[in-house]
Parts: sequence; C-alpha cells; structure tokens
Amino acid sequence: MSELRQNTITKDWVVIAPERSKRPDEFKHRKVQDKRAEQDVKEQAACPFCPGNEAMCGEAVLTYYQKDSGKGPQAKWSLRVVPNKFPALVEDEETSRITEGIGNFFVKMNGVGHHEVVIEHPEHFQTIATMSREAVEGILASYIERYQQLSEDPCVQLITIFRNNGPRAGTSLRHPHSQIIASPIIPIQIRHVIEEAVRYFDTMGRCIFCTMIEQEKTVEKRVISETEHFISVAPFASRSPFEIWIVPKRHRASFAKISDVEKRDLAGVLRDILSRLYHGLGDPDYNYMIHSAPYHEDPADYYHWHLQILPKLSEVAGFELGSSIYLNTTSPEENARFLRGIKASNS
Amino acid sequence: MSELRQNTITKDWVVIAPERSKRPDEFKHRKVQDKRAEQDVKEQAACPFCPGNEAMCGEAVLTYYQKDSGKGPQAKWSLRVVPNKFPALVEDEETSRITEGIGNFFVKMNGVGHHEVVIEHPEHFQTIATMSREAVEGILASYIERYQQLSEDPCVQLITIFRNNGPRAGTSLRHPHSQIIASPIIPIQIRHVIEEAVRYFDTMGRCIFCTMIEQEKTVEKRVISETEHFISVAPFASRSPFEIWIVPKRHRASFAKISDVEKRDLAGVLRDILSRLYHGLGDPDYNYMIHSAPYHEDPADYYHWHLQILPKLSEVAGFELGSSIYLNTTSPEENARFLRGIKASNS
Repeated sequence: MSELRQNTITKDWVVIAPERSKRPDEFKHRKVQDKRAEQDVKEQAACPFCPGNEAMCGEAVLTYYQKDSGKGPQAKWSLRVVPNKFPALVEDEETSRITEGIGNFFVKMNGVGHHEVVIEHPEHFQTIATMSREAVEGILASYIERYQQLSEDPCVQLITIFRNNGPRAGTSLRHPHSQIIASPIIPIQIRHVIEEAVRYFDTMGRCIFCTMIEQEKTVEKRVISETEHFISVAPFASRSPFEIWIVPKRHRASFAKISDVEKRDLAGVLRDILSRLYHGLGDPDYNYMIHSAPYHEDPADYYHWHLQILPKLSEVAGFELGSSIYLNTTSPEENARFLRGIKASNS
Repeated sequence: MSELRQNTITKDWVVIAPERSKRPDEFKHRKVQDKRAEQDVKEQAACPFCPGNEAMCGEAVLTYYQKDSGKGPQAKWSLRVVPNKFPALVEDEETSRITEGIGNFFVKMNGVGHHEVVIEHPEHFQTIATMSREAVEGILASYIERYQQLSEDPCVQLITIFRNNGPRAGTSLRHPHSQIIASPIIPIQIRHVIEEAVRYFDTMGRCIFCTMIEQEKTVEKRVISETEHFISVAPFASRSPFEIWIVPKRHRASFAKISDVEKRDLAGVLRDILSRLYHGLGDPDYNYMIHSAPYHEDPADYYHWHLQILPKLSEVAGFELGSSIYLNTTSPEENARFLRGIKASNS
C-alpha cells in the first residue's frame, strides 16, 4: 500500500507509491557519453554563449577572467553574466497596479524587473557535474554578486536563481548557464510557506528548517551527504523521483549573506550531488532553484534559505494539476541510499 | 514590455510575454494523420483497454453498452470503468495520521482512497475530439455516476477527475481514457482557493466565479465559445499557452450535481473545444481536470465547479518551480481569437 506524506514546511501532500516504481537504474534515460562529436561543431558555431560569439549577447553586467590569461582585451573570460536576450521582465520604475473591469476584477502591472543569464563556463559541453570545484565556486560567487546588486533596485521584491539543465527541464541551449530573475511581486505560494514558518516559530520557538535538519540527522536514512556547513537530503515527502534539498546548517534567511567559507563548501557539495545524479542516473535533465527570503523582508528568525534540485524523470499530469497532490513512484529513503552509493567525481 | 497578471480566483501571478512568442500555428507539434497504420495492430493487441482484452483489467465497476448490441454476455460495451491496475491509492478504513520524529515532525498516513480508469470508447484510436457527441455524453455520465458512488465512502475528502492526453501530458497509453482518484485529504492549495472565494463572497456578497463569467462576457475578447449553459474562456492570467476554462453559467459547487440538460450541453462544448485544439494545433498533448468542491463541504454559495484544460505546449522550468510565478509567452486574447476561428468537427 502506498503512503501519503506531508512536507511539514510546504504542507504539500505526496503519494509515495514505490510499488509502481522502476528501479533507480531504470531512470537512466540516456548514456553518458563523450558529446564532443563532429556534428556538434555546428552547434557551437551558432551558440551565443561560446567564446568568439560574445556580440550575440548584450553587454556583460559581470565578467570573471581566467587566471593567468592576462589583462586587457586579450584576457579570456571564465564566466559572464549578460542580460537575457528575450527577457521575461525588464527594468522600469512603474510598479503601479492597473485594474480593469467592474470592481477592479482584473489586476495587472508592467513586466518590471530583471532577467539575466549566467554563462557559467567558456566550454560548450561542460556541466556543473564535470566542472572543477573552482569553476563552481565562481558560479556561486556570481549569483551572490548579482543578487546583492539587483537587491538595490527598490522595485525588486523577489530574486529567483535557477538552472534548467536539458530539454525536459525547459532549455534548448546546451551551453552551461543559469538564470536570475528579479520580480516586483511576492507570489502567494511564497507567502504561504513563510506564514507556515512563522506559525511554527511562534509555536515551537525555533526555525522549522533547523528542526528538519536535526530530525534528518537523527533518522539518517534520507541523508545523502553531510559536510561542515551543509546537509543534502531526499525530503521525507519528495514530490518526484530523486528530489534533493541542500540545506545550510547555519540559520540564515538570505542566500546572499552566506560567508566565503560556506560558499567554498557549497561549491563542493553542489558539484558532488550533481555528479552523483550525472553518473548514477545518466546525466538526467533537472532544474535547481535557490529559495531565499524576499529581500526586503529578511525574516531572519524563521526563514532559512536552501537549494532544491528536481530531476525531470516524470511528468506532472492531470492528478497533480487537479488536486495539487503529488504522485511519486519512488521511495526517498531508497533514492538516498542509491545516491550515497554512487562514486562522485574527484575534485 | 511584458505584463504581470494575477488570476483573481487562484491569486497566481503570470508573466504574459507574447514578444517572446511563437505564432499559434508554430505550436503545431505533429500532423493530424490517420493513425490506423499497419504497425499499430501490435499496439492494439497489447492494449489492456481494447475489446477482447478485458481480462487484462480488474472487474469493471461500471459498464455502458452500445445501443442495439443486445443483452447478455454477447452485448458490446461502449464504456467501462475499471480499477487502476497500479493504483496510487487503495480502499481501506485506516485514515489516522502516523507521526514520526520529535514533536511529531513528520506526518503520514496510509494511501487510502480509490483510483479508477474510465475506458472511454472501444476504439483504440479515438479521442474526444473525434468521438460522437453521444459518446462524450457517456463519458460525462460515467464521471457523475462514479463521483456519486465514491462520495459515499466516508474516507473520501476530494475526488479528482482528469484526463491525460499524450506522452507529454503523462500517459503512454493511447487508448482513450480518463482517471478518477478519490483521496482522503484536502490539500492546502485547494483550501487556499476556497478561502479566497469565501473572502470574496464576504466582501462582495457574490460568487467570484459568477463575477468572472459576467466580466468575461462584457469584455468578450477572451471568450472562445458560449452556449446556453457554459462559457469557455482563455483566462485573463493563463498560466500557459492555450489554457482554457469551461465554466457553467449556473452557480453550483459540485460537478456531480449538474442536470441532464447541462450534461448534454457540456458534452457538445467539451468536444467542440477539444476539436478546435485538435485541428488548430495538430492534436496537442493536454491535461484536463474537473475542479469540484470537496464533497463533504458543499460550499454552495461561494465555490463554483469548472473544467480546466492545459495543453502541454511548454515546460514548467526553474523559474516557475522557484518563484511560483508562471511564464506564458502567448497572449490569452490572441489565443482566444485563434480558437474562435477554427472550424470544429460537426456533431
């Protein structure tokens, strides 16, 4: 018989039905292979993120350079942040709501905000799982720099940092990249999670995320890895196969305020976890998202930033869309055990 | 510049960015063609829903027969409802919560409920867009019968009726079918929509859905079709390309209580709308879901059942998963105009 489990933090309910399940290795949807094939030369020539094609993007808002590549116009970049060429939101000062209809029934506003692309690496066929630890640290450093910069725009209410990896996860561009969207609104779903965290804090006198970390360390079976500053777990009520949360042990509401030591540690953890997915499941498509408190709120006591990884191994279908209940045909405990057993890349 | 629009009923925010858009006919992802090819004979032989293979499913809980096909064991069925062979939830009486961890941190329960499949038609290659109106009426009649029957189980809190059409929408089985899942919980997302509806009722003294119908009829541009009993619209804040809501004009919280006249009308509307998608967009994958009030609540004054169709023409990616804001690269007004211009099948 399946189980219904509730995520204590988000209040999401999930049907955990591993009897409907495949074995973990049946999720391998394609072979990891050397992708630098002849036919890929064309792809690179047309890639707006490859070195030599910089003019295909707007001017970089942030550039990091390779060590020992000199200074001046000949210097080689290691990472660039550029404006998205097809931005969902663009800079503007007009954040007034516009209403239409009797009784102001329809509410809208200009698409105000920022939409940037982090070109993570000069090499077209890299992905975080295969990069050096230093390269991953550079990606995190750029997230933090841009987060801090974008927070200074008074229109900005929420900054979402995310990575779409592979076509099933919503990207057609293979060149390694992440995105940052700064939006002028706080959606009700984010409010609800914060409200639940406040409610827990008011009752129990402590952060609900800190409590989760303590509980997961005690039961052990859903922990994938633990370092000095981070714990990676398959959540008790994982919404889909191989969902992973990377949670900092130090309580802090905003991602942008992590220390340099934490940043270095996180680079290793993120690379290690994505490498386990890459080798264990054959380079699956995935999305990852950094959940951080809305900037102007800084609800320091009760919210706790974290990173969620959702491999794209199943489809959200009519049941999920109609009931808001998730259906997961795998066991989080089994998935954690499987991933613990995968040998990750060496640094 | 894009627009941010809020769905007044669900409070979801959507970025409407049609400048990033494709033209409607670029969404055509495959040609409508005669699928009764030679190679499909194998597929039918192995199909558990095809006539002759009835033994591959559990015993039917409901069967409708073809007119003039006689009585007794030789009668030919037109529709069957069978238990799902790999049920997400199964019948049981134990609905107690089980808690684990310090302070009852983890909450779970048995996977109690019902999971049924409506085999909509004996012919493997039919789909609602191509069926007769009588066949579609039969599907709706079976939904209502099963909804009423399943409501009698005191464990059941929520009944979700949905249809996954095509692999991107989560089904690998081509034989036309819908599913019904009766679950023992009411998810927080459903509660929140009801709470918003109550809040609107307490302020404005009327149903928020009835208000939406009135508003959409006034502005006209998002209406796709209107009959005596139903209105079909592209919602103001459509979450994805060609989202459609079919809303009954008569205020009623529960789908299962619609009249025979409404049922007949809805059969025509559903077939007409799905036929417009089939011909206009080349048989796109889609999910539809019937949203009905939780059975034991019957919040007659403020909730209003309706059917949502979500064609699967884009992927939910990191931005949506991280921020809960949707990104739609099409204009609901344009989509409605496009669908109004499509000639649907004749009855």
